[in-house]
Amino acid sequence: MLRTATCGELRADHVGQTVTLCGWADKYRDHGGVVFVDLRDRYGITQIAFRMEESSETQKLAASIRHEDVIQVTGEVVSRGDENKNPKLATGDIEVRTNDLKILNRSLTPPFEPRGEHLANEELRLQYRFIDLRRPALQEMMKVRHQLTTSVRNYFDELGFLDIETPILGRSSPEGARDYLVPSRVHEASFYALPQSPQLFKQILMVAGYDRYYQIARCFRDEDLRADRQPEFTQIDIEMSFVDLEDILSTIDGLLARMVKDVRGTELKTPLPRYTHAEVMERYGTDKPDLRFGMELTDISDLVAESGFGVFKNTVGSGGKVRGLCVKGAADKYSRRILDNDMKKIVGEHGAKGLAYFKVVGNGLESSIAKFFNEDEQKAIVERMGGEDGDLLVYVADKYEVTCAALAALRNHLAKDLELYDPKELNCAWVVEFPLVTRNEEENRWDAEHHPFCAVHPDDLEYFESDPSRIRALSYDLVCNGYEAASGSIRIHDPAVQQKIFDLLNIEAEEAERRFGFLLQALRYGAPPHGGIALGLDRWVMMFMGTDNIRDVIAFPKTQKASDLMMGAPSTVDDHQLRDLHIKVDLPE
Amino acid sequence: MLRTATCGELRADHVGQTVTLCGWADKYRDHGGVVFVDLRDRYGITQIAFRMEESSETQKLAASIRHEDVIQVTGEVVSRGDENKNPKLATGDIEVRTNDLKILNRSLTPPFEPRGEHLANEELRLQYRFIDLRRPALQEMMKVRHQLTTSVRNYFDELGFLDIETPILGRSSPEGARDYLVPSRVHEASFYALPQSPQLFKQILMVAGYDRYYQIARCFRDEDLRADRQPEFTQIDIEMSFVDLEDILSTIDGLLARMVKDVRGTELKTPLPRYTHAEVMERYGTDKPDLRFGMELTDISDLVAESGFGVFKNTVGSGGKVRGLCVKGAADKYSRRILDNDMKKIVGEHGAKGLAYFKVVGNGLESSIAKFFNEDEQKAIVERMGGEDGDLLVYVADKYEVTCAALAALRNHLAKDLELYDPKELNCAWVVEFPLVTRNEEENRWDAEHHPFCAVHPDDLEYFESDPSRIRALSYDLVCNGYEAASGSIRIHDPAVQQKIFDLLNIEAEEAERRFGFLLQALRYGAPPHGGIALGLDRWVMMFMGTDNIRDVIAFPKTQKASDLMMGAPSTVDDHQLRDLHIKVDLPE
Repeated sequence: MLRTATCGELRADHVGQTVTLCGWADKYRDHGGVVFVDLRDRYGITQIAFRMEESSETQKLAASIRHEDVIQVTGEVVSRGDENKNPKLATGDIEVRTNDLKILNRSLTPPFEPRGEHLANEELRLQYRFIDLRRPALQEMMKVRHQLTTSVRNYFDELGFLDIETPILGRSSPEGARDYLVPSRVHEASFYALPQSPQLFKQILMVAGYDRYYQIARCFRDEDLRADRQPEFTQIDIEMSFVDLEDILSTIDGLLARMVKDVRGTELKTPLPRYTHAEVMERYGTDKPDLRFGMELTDISDLVAESGFGVFKNTVGSGGKVRGLCVKGAADKYSRRILDNDMKKIVGEHGAKGLAYFKVVGNGLESSIAKFFNEDEQKAIVERMGGEDGDLLVYVADKYEVTCAALAALRNHLAKDLELYDPKELNCAWVVEFPLVTRNEEENRWDAEHHPFCAVHPDDLEYFESDPSRIRALSYDLVCNGYEAASGSIRIHDPAVQQKIFDLLNIEAEEAERRFGFLLQALRYGAPPHGGIALGLDRWVMMFMGTDNIRDVIAFPKTQKASDLMMGAPSTVDDHQLRDLHIKVDLPE
Repeated sequence: MLRTATCGELRADHVGQTVTLCGWADKYRDHGGVVFVDLRDRYGITQIAFRMEESSETQKLAASIRHEDVIQVTGEVVSRGDENKNPKLATGDIEVRTNDLKILNRSLTPPFEPRGEHLANEELRLQYRFIDLRRPALQEMMKVRHQLTTSVRNYFDELGFLDIETPILGRSSPEGARDYLVPSRVHEASFYALPQSPQLFKQILMVAGYDRYYQIARCFRDEDLRADRQPEFTQIDIEMSFVDLEDILSTIDGLLARMVKDVRGTELKTPLPRYTHAEVMERYGTDKPDLRFGMELTDISDLVAESGFGVFKNTVGSGGKVRGLCVKGAADKYSRRILDNDMKKIVGEHGAKGLAYFKVVGNGLESSIAKFFNEDEQKAIVERMGGEDGDLLVYVADKYEVTCAALAALRNHLAKDLELYDPKELNCAWVVEFPLVTRNEEENRWDAEHHPFCAVHPDDLEYFESDPSRIRALSYDLVCNGYEAASGSIRIHDPAVQQKIFDLLNIEAEEAERRFGFLLQALRYGAPPHGGIALGLDRWVMMFMGTDNIRDVIAFPKTQKASDLMMGAPSTVDDHQLRDLHIKVDLPE
């Protein structure tokens, strides 16, 4: 090695040793003939002092050091003395005094400094990703990502799972999101598709007897990107045979405890709390509740059904609901303008026509509409809401589903705005008993809530004829900090049940073959009972690190337009490449 | 779990216990009212005996069990007694007696049996891969593959390497093999390319300060496939900063020792032997010598320069070489017909015009051309070759390069045919000091032997002007059992040396930017000295398992026509998918 120590490891214990360090010149300053350089590598920073009274050549060279030059120094570890110690730095007790300097490589003036005070704009940072990736914060992200995957691998390895690679060049399926396609050169007019997940392969592996499979798998979706999506993302993918739902949930409880222990050194309490789908919809309005804070949805429909406020009364009268949130101590936090504009807009985006609000004063209400409620009604509302003097109450009156969606969004917004939680806290829970199917009123049919291979709760087989909306799937989501952090199900292995579901979903035999051909084929040749789950790795790193930006946890991410600004991808290609693939570009006139 | 034990774990110790097993019905037989089923899972096989005098329903059900049905049984572990023990089976001391049987799933009659005596043809097996993957031999392959990757990960994790994922959706580069392309939907007329390796990214990661990187990375090459190639393959990819060649070689020596220890439980002697490129060409005729056996190439040019055999004499006279092999004890192994046809064909495929051969008799030669050599010449040849009575000597007379290629191929063929080695032996060595460039006579220029970023041996800088063919690269291949099992180099980080190489290769600035743009850009902003290596994982599993078929070590491989016969990929896609991507199929008329 060109070094004997890293820039992160020298301490007072090392004083007197001669060491060789390599790294990047971070801050530098010339202090009356002594040049100081903060030398940086991914392990830390060490102060180098060039005290070269007798070596004017080295002195000249040291004075020429600029940001991001790569240097090698050999010198003595020296105590900085009490007055010059830097307690903010792990190596702050010492410095390395040297007159032996080698410039390994010069750097052009970087467009921004990795440890600069202000973050450069993201486009520039993505373009110069090799410099941005020197930021200690990003290096920490990559390190934690590595620790997480290592933890996952060790856990499953110890439990006898096999890590099995599945193809990236797969077959296009008309299911779900849009596929990325890869034209075949050998087979004219034919295409591979990049996998949206290894779902079919992991089920095939169970049919093939692999029993316990996991993979940290790359997946691809050609979707219009939201802030937290990437065209390629990574999934911790798991499937097990001869198991029931409890086995999967407890396996994943154990995984999370291991991840938290390995990465944070703390204990996660397991088993994780478990909620039914119906319960979280009632209490939080969403199947992805953020449980780091309370502020649950409360239904006051019965209390306002006869009130003088027409909007509430009429909503309840026509079968709708009036539900709301009690925002503790927030009565004076938000102006009428903010409530009538910003907050109303949030609920409006989820279909609500308006937002009603009150301040709690004593055990009564205050607002422009408070007058429509008599004293008893006000008291009852405050009591139901658990309101106290100074709380803010907000309400949506609408169909049940709209109150759910609107208040769930508002709840998240308020909690973030009021900093009701620690962004690095991990709060995980299971949501189980999702409905198997949802009614698609527009097309007058039933759609699968997850996919058509979810097993059915054994108590609910009777509802296939009477009321399909009541059939619960043996599916489960892990929700963490308001995100779907994992999702899975027990799969159907019984061809008769599978047929019932296809019938319910109105999928005819021919269509089923076309859409799921090779899996259906495999299931006929001795499929064991099996089930599985997948965790979004990128999301888990984000949650561990408390960041909302998915591009912070991926070394070479793409923009929301699916571009890689550093390498310039996608790009045009040579005509002969397209000719080889028997395709041509076909732009609209 | 639906079981309390696997089919591989019950022993005499467990006798008397009540267990529940799940698995696939392998062999079954009805023995006068007792049905025996070999129950199989990936852990082993346990004999189940249905002795159900009183339970005729279960008896009927047991008698209905057919190959590959999935069943669950609960029963007592019973000793088979000395007379019925099966010493070939790990569980052969016991059987499970039961009258509690549940058929978890029926199987259609499988097209072949996973443990059938004869292997079905490969096309059928690939089509029904989910059955083929139940073969214990293939399950062992997947297990060893898992053990190898686990071993690799643990090794690098302990050394402080970070596992960092690099993109699959990359940018097309005109370098090397043909790219797989992925049309972009968002950017019209633009394409991503699947990576042929993470080479550029790992160098970027070094520039970005990650210091020690590894990844088990999927790579893609759209090449016409040979028997041992796949369109997608897996690479153990490594890069390190602030290192020299010795650091990389010793790191990989340690990796191999760890892999051998973890997977085979044996010690690998390190450091591995090291040969220069010139030496292996001289001794084995190839830079990928199989060192599991000797039979080195021997030059007899000087001994036959004046002989009466015109072919030898003239070859030497015109600057060519006469080189050959001594095949121990093989004088009577091969008929004249085989030597004149099969063997001659092998050397012919590498440009040799003929194959001369002799038997060693005493210390003289015997063959149709022996008469052209006098006694002294014969004696000298036998001595030089280390020949003994009964050996076969074979020769090629041609240009040096032709003798190398022809005899290397013949040497491999003979060793395999004569079973001179154990296919599961691992014999590894380093080949170093490759030439930096080779002369492309046709196009009158120098081509890079590896790629244009290989660093140069510090002693050879002077040859840039005088004789570029003498410049040695700081590159290294790990050869194992005759294969290139790893390849890498120290990279250039000095822009001045990089420019010298571009000049030598006649790559102009503009072309360099177009071909290597973002890496060149990154190298200007503080690139540390760095180097790396990549190991072909599929090849390593093949070598550990002693198989020549790459499709045996990949769960879902593709055929030599790059098809997946199970899922039917590649396939046609819907027109709207192509419209979304702004492409259309363009077949020649």
